[in-house]
Amino acid sequence: MTHPRIDTLQYANWSERIFRQMREGGVDAVHVTITYHENFRETVLNIEAWNRWFERFPDLIFQGCTARDITLAQQTGRTAIFFGAQNPSCIEDDIGLVQVLHRLGLRFMQLSYNNQSLLASGCYEAEDTGLTRMGREVVTEMNRVGLVVDMSHSGERSTLEAIEHSTRPIAITHANPASWHPARRNKSDHVLRALSESGGMLGFSVYPHHLRGGSACALADFCAMIARTADLMGTTHIGLGTDLCQDQPDSVVDWMRAGRWTKGRDLGEGSAENPGFPPMPDWFQDNRDFDRIAGGLRATGMSQDEVAAIMGGNWARFFADSFEGAQPLCQEAAQ
Amino acid sequence: MTHPRIDTLQYANWSERIFRQMREGGVDAVHVTITYHENFRETVLNIEAWNRWFERFPDLIFQGCTARDITLAQQTGRTAIFFGAQNPSCIEDDIGLVQVLHRLGLRFMQLSYNNQSLLASGCYEAEDTGLTRMGREVVTEMNRVGLVVDMSHSGERSTLEAIEHSTRPIAITHANPASWHPARRNKSDHVLRALSESGGMLGFSVYPHHLRGGSACALADFCAMIARTADLMGTTHIGLGTDLCQDQPDSVVDWMRAGRWTKGRDLGEGSAENPGFPPMPDWFQDNRDFDRIAGGLRATGMSQDEVAAIMGGNWARFFADSFEGAQPLCQEAAQ
Repeated sequence: MTHPRIDTLQYANWSERIFRQMREGGVDAVHVTITYHENFRETVLNIEAWNRWFERFPDLIFQGCTARDITLAQQTGRTAIFFGAQNPSCIEDDIGLVQVLHRLGLRFMQLSYNNQSLLASGCYEAEDTGLTRMGREVVTEMNRVGLVVDMSHSGERSTLEAIEHSTRPIAITHANPASWHPARRNKSDHVLRALSESGGMLGFSVYPHHLRGGSACALADFCAMIARTADLMGTTHIGLGTDLCQDQPDSVVDWMRAGRWTKGRDLGEGSAENPGFPPMPDWFQDNRDFDRIAGGLRATGMSQDEVAAIMGGNWARFFADSFEGAQPLCQEAAQ
Repeated sequence: MTHPRIDTLQYANWSERIFRQMREGGVDAVHVTITYHENFRETVLNIEAWNRWFERFPDLIFQGCTARDITLAQQTGRTAIFFGAQNPSCIEDDIGLVQVLHRLGLRFMQLSYNNQSLLASGCYEAEDTGLTRMGREVVTEMNRVGLVVDMSHSGERSTLEAIEHSTRPIAITHANPASWHPARRNKSDHVLRALSESGGMLGFSVYPHHLRGGSACALADFCAMIARTADLMGTTHIGLGTDLCQDQPDSVVDWMRAGRWTKGRDLGEGSAENPGFPPMPDWFQDNRDFDRIAGGLRATGMSQDEVAAIMGGNWARFFADSFEGAQPLCQEAAQ
């Protein structure tokens, strides 16, 4: 098969149109956010909604469980959908839900989302106290079952402690280097180096608040940043995690930022002048635009193999190493 | 492999001792009740408890997903544990939970437990109005995903309508013929004939309230009843579903009977003189006693093959036909 094309973060207002765009764009696998601040039962409702998408559009999408599903997607001309949680509220205060949600298909879980969670500090807290007592236990359990620790929205100390404590490589599925654009959500070179040295992966975000120049950021600038990060982290520990929030109303970004933790409004990465979803750069509007990024990477002087690795090959290797636990998904798989 | 030994109903106070008795008794697969009146979240807590048993005793038990796990159990000297629900309260009012619970391993679900449910009437209701609107929808969904309709505690009309409406054979996992012992939980010859003619299965119960003579019922009488039922239903549509509730305190039978639906007490099959769990017959105390039943069946004049079919072969065939849905458990299984 040719190299797969993989995006490790999308949270769209899902529709047949978007699934068809995934096919047009040749996207073999997508890590989709299925839950932010939802509790377990609410998260299961979201899984039920996905089950209905899978039932309605079996020719376009299917649920991804293991890295072998990337190959299956390529062979059958469909997109494998891998579930992720941006906040650990879906496991409530119950470590047993880690295995239950993994069984239901969860493959990534952030330990915190901007705020302090039961597990770790978020990148918007004034103080980052690192992994909590429960956080250490949950990381160990996530390692056991094959649920990837994602620190995209966590604070620096929590992220370094997760890298240290986790026995399997972790991911920052959607963020950029702070040295390029010093947003709170972007990551220091210190974190990025520790991430790649431990075998972890960074997915580059196209969300305008993570881009130098915001929505006006040029493709060449974005790709030059990737090339520089490749010098820092190596070409095998980077991929794409676009953070595409296609077709969402602004009420959704309000929910992402404020959940139920405040009666007020939290603008997060936004501002009073720009409180809603920012417009995506003109060179990345939807799933049909991945060729542009591939072209932009080639234009930086990267080899075809390096570009293929960044466009999905590296994530495919990481998926293969990450999603299967000490116990097989089904017993029969052990035969 | 030799013929498997399968029991389609146990609800014990689980312990390492009981799992070891399963091994001593050569029991390859057990359908265990994981939930009665629990809602979805409470049922998931029970699954979490089972996950801990599986993690603690991987050399004795593992979770069964498909009929192939019966063979795996035989090959590895362990017991495959298949989950079942005695009441549909675990799906609440949400048909989407059928697929979710199937993914978590649920393989049997009763449409009602003694009382009226959202889906069907129970065998203790004064009137049986058959499958409800939701009941018909849920049976169709259970057929689609591979979750077996179990009518052990349902009323006669509901059971006949479930047989009629279901496109896949259904099961009565634990009951006996009412013609032998006219308990409300036992089934009429009319139901048993409709069950076998539609390809369904009956599991004979050893629970004393289902036995002629109760706890004093003789093994020879029990086995003669099985032989007569074989004449009615054929030897290929019957098996064992002992209803073994080993080591349970009487508070558990109170929960089974009264759940949260009454502030009073409901004695169910019991009586004021005998309100708790009745003592099991001396010839079936625990999982080590299946040889006695096999011997008793041989003594009725059945062939070795017929006895093997009743001791597990028939259930193995039914499991193979029943647990896989229109969509595979994991996509990769479709490859």
